[in-house]
Amino acid sequence: MKLFSSVNDVSNIHQIVSEAISQKQNPFADEQLGKHKTLGLIFLNPSLRTRLSTQKAALNLGMQVMVMNLDKEGWALETQDGVIMNGTTVEHIREAAGVMGEYCDVIGFRSFPGLVNREEDYSEEIFNKFVKFCGVPVLSLESAIRHPLQSLADLVTIEELKKTEKPKVVLTWAPHVKPLPQAVANSFAEWMNKADYDFVITHPEGYDLAPEFVGNAFVTNNQDEALAGADFVYVKNWSSYNDYGKILTDGEGWMMTNEKLKLTNNAGVMHCLPVRRGLELSHEILDGPNSLVLNQANNRVWAAQAVLKSILESLT
Amino acid sequence: MKLFSSVNDVSNIHQIVSEAISQKQNPFADEQLGKHKTLGLIFLNPSLRTRLSTQKAALNLGMQVMVMNLDKEGWALETQDGVIMNGTTVEHIREAAGVMGEYCDVIGFRSFPGLVNREEDYSEEIFNKFVKFCGVPVLSLESAIRHPLQSLADLVTIEELKKTEKPKVVLTWAPHVKPLPQAVANSFAEWMNKADYDFVITHPEGYDLAPEFVGNAFVTNNQDEALAGADFVYVKNWSSYNDYGKILTDGEGWMMTNEKLKLTNNAGVMHCLPVRRGLELSHEILDGPNSLVLNQANNRVWAAQAVLKSILESLT
Amino acid sequence: MKLFSSVNDVSNIHQIVSEAISQKQNPFADEQLGKHKTLGLIFLNPSLRTRLSTQKAALNLGMQVMVMNLDKEGWALETQDGVIMNGTTVEHIREAAGVMGEYCDVIGFRSFPGLVNREEDYSEEIFNKFVKFCGVPVLSLESAIRHPLQSLADLVTIEELKKTEKPKVVLTWAPHVKPLPQAVANSFAEWMNKADYDFVITHPEGYDLAPEFVGNAFVTNNQDEALAGADFVYVKNWSSYNDYGKILTDGEGWMMTNEKLKLTNNAGVMHCLPVRRGLELSHEILDGPNSLVLNQANNRVWAAQAVLKSILESLT
Repeated sequence: MKLFSSVNDVSNIHQIVSEAISQKQNPFADEQLGKHKTLGLIFLNPSLRTRLSTQKAALNLGMQVMVMNLDKEGWALETQDGVIMNGTTVEHIREAAGVMGEYCDVIGFRSFPGLVNREEDYSEEIFNKFVKFCGVPVLSLESAIRHPLQSLADLVTIEELKKTEKPKVVLTWAPHVKPLPQAVANSFAEWMNKADYDFVITHPEGYDLAPEFVGNAFVTNNQDEALAGADFVYVKNWSSYNDYGKILTDGEGWMMTNEKLKLTNNAGVMHCLPVRRGLELSHEILDGPNSLVLNQANNRVWAAQAVLKSILESLT
Repeated sequence: MKLFSSVNDVSNIHQIVSEAISQKQNPFADEQLGKHKTLGLIFLNPSLRTRLSTQKAALNLGMQVMVMNLDKEGWALETQDGVIMNGTTVEHIREAAGVMGEYCDVIGFRSFPGLVNREEDYSEEIFNKFVKFCGVPVLSLESAIRHPLQSLADLVTIEELKKTEKPKVVLTWAPHVKPLPQAVANSFAEWMNKADYDFVITHPEGYDLAPEFVGNAFVTNNQDEALAGADFVYVKNWSSYNDYGKILTDGEGWMMTNEKLKLTNNAGVMHCLPVRRGLELSHEILDGPNSLVLNQANNRVWAAQAVLKSILESLT
Repeated sequence: MKLFSSVNDVSNIHQIVSEAISQKQNPFADEQLGKHKTLGLIFLNPSLRTRLSTQKAALNLGMQVMVMNLDKEGWALETQDGVIMNGTTVEHIREAAGVMGEYCDVIGFRSFPGLVNREEDYSEEIFNKFVKFCGVPVLSLESAIRHPLQSLADLVTIEELKKTEKPKVVLTWAPHVKPLPQAVANSFAEWMNKADYDFVITHPEGYDLAPEFVGNAFVTNNQDEALAGADFVYVKNWSSYNDYGKILTDGEGWMMTNEKLKLTNNAGVMHCLPVRRGLELSHEILDGPNSLVLNQANNRVWAAQAVLKSILESLT
């Protein structure tokens, strides 16, 4: 693999899930594979899980890791072409990406959306430019509209714990105080569609995801209907795609609780973290036996390790 | 050892001092011990000596190190239970600690006190919650009321240089322009009490440390009386414990100088650093032969290495 | 080598260029040399290329690397002697440097000029104090008035690509919106003088570099005259040395373009980066075949590796 930016970059999702589980069982089996190879982790936005889990995965594979928080340690990047750079941006992404490609064999890159201009965000302009100009294999550490390492870890978590071949998986919108990207929801949806589960999305009116991500999912504004018999419930806030980047409702009644859990098939409750307790998810669920959030976080390591292994194997 | 948060976590202080000195003589003797083990260093507050010395100690032991400045690279943590997180805190310490425990075999954690609510600070709430929810061995990189790695390095320094079995050790308050935690003074006092030296504490009125830390020390507001015949003088500012977190005096006359050194038994002068020159300690002392501040800083490595070794040996 | 702060610290520039090219051809040939040696990279100012390339060079040599962004992770340093530190500076450079020398075998240090007091900046006070008080070998990661790792990488780039023994090399001033240090221009000039090329400097009136850096260069305010027949053109902004730290002109007409390239001998165009596109250098040049900026960036690794190798060999 030369690029890991969406589910479409993976030729066989079952194979990469198997690889992740295999890495989990034997974390140091491939520690010679990354010898003399350097992974650069470039963040334009904050990160905790993604940074630590990807760093750990790379170290397990014997790689060297260099972390650069460009937003804090570096400077503002220009992403528009042809402009006169006489303002506050200090370096163009063409040079910045090119230079980092000179120092790294593989690069992980994170850049959040602006949530102002939908067309711009959904074109993945910054991520795609970075990929183009760095000239080395790139894995997404979350881009404007996707978070594929998270989704792969989520898929691994479900595959490890599912009791039926085609579990019912529900993605439910949850309230939040800040407008958040659609990235995690988009990515989860496209991976679930590919996994061919019984996949349902539920959210208040006005929060429909982009059609290319919804795919074949059943969509309803009735959360209770969605939750009925669910094996896994993925809780996540996102801001509106149609009224782009906006918060349309305070979402009263949409928080996931033990009461709602009764509607499900004793579902495992998932969240990518960080989670707002008492707002997105109740304390009782997070502290109870149905929470899978730490399983998901743990699986971030093995998802990253499977992806990095595949990238390392593709290096000449 | 599964936890290093105070002198009480050490079964035998003479043994751990010996271990630190042994590591100093042969820094790479145990470099296989930490193979495939990851140390996370999590800072909610700035650090220079603690970060570098602990990182170095872990590398000497063959560990991988991941540093996370949560205050700068991450986001604000919620520490209260049961609240609705609809404010500025982005993640609860339950999840943040739990996740970091998934990625690290051992964690070092730093969190300073607020210096507003004494009961809260002295309950070590944040540190204790982190320990509880991360689920892996933790060493304190300074908590609200203790700085045990500093104190162990201080003890090593005294043990290396003392000329009598029970040297006279004086902890003297010094002036400062900002209200500082009592952590270093508290910790130094509890380690000196355990070491069973001739231990004296001197400070202006109103700066008494908490009784559980003072222990059997002789306490006086007369600095000259305290310094008389001292073998080691530890200079440190702290804010008031009784009038919690307050500065009660500008401390004129309390700065340690060569003039005062004459009262002592040619004492070694100690400070944990960073030190305010010309305010806490005179330039002449810091630039003179009695200063032990770099000895202490150097011993931070071996203190951390002895603690990490003991923790690594306890991992199954 | 115990110190790398300027071209004068290098006994033979041809030899160190050869060493850099040799490291480039075989990056891991000396990976045992740095075993058990720690490089500290201390930044008082932001860095991208310098940090990543020096970190990579050290890892190639088998060293451990600890990065400290003192401006962000640490605190403000006091550099004046004899003052009462009752203000905003938290630690004196004497202690900060001394402590870091206890933890590192070699230190890289970056400190930019204030551009207010010329005498102070040109005395290299902060850099020299750091060197003095840390007590271990130091390599400059850019000081107030020099950037020697950049210049060595630039020299390697020219040596790799030159077609004549003594190429014509032109350093041309370029417009910028912020007052920048003279460091890169100064350093480039002193390395070019040492290399004994046909070296020309061109800039608008008032932008003369300090005489000790100009050396034997031919200086002209006529850019076209300077560019005529050039083999290499180094484009760089700097603020005024005479009217210290000031911007004297918006520099209209001084941007390097393809039109001006026609005056040259199909010159290779160089810049240390970050570059302001459309202001210092045209988009067409940066995206065209004459740009050497990524060659220079790549050679930063091998320049640093040659310097670090020489320093490591000098350690007892």
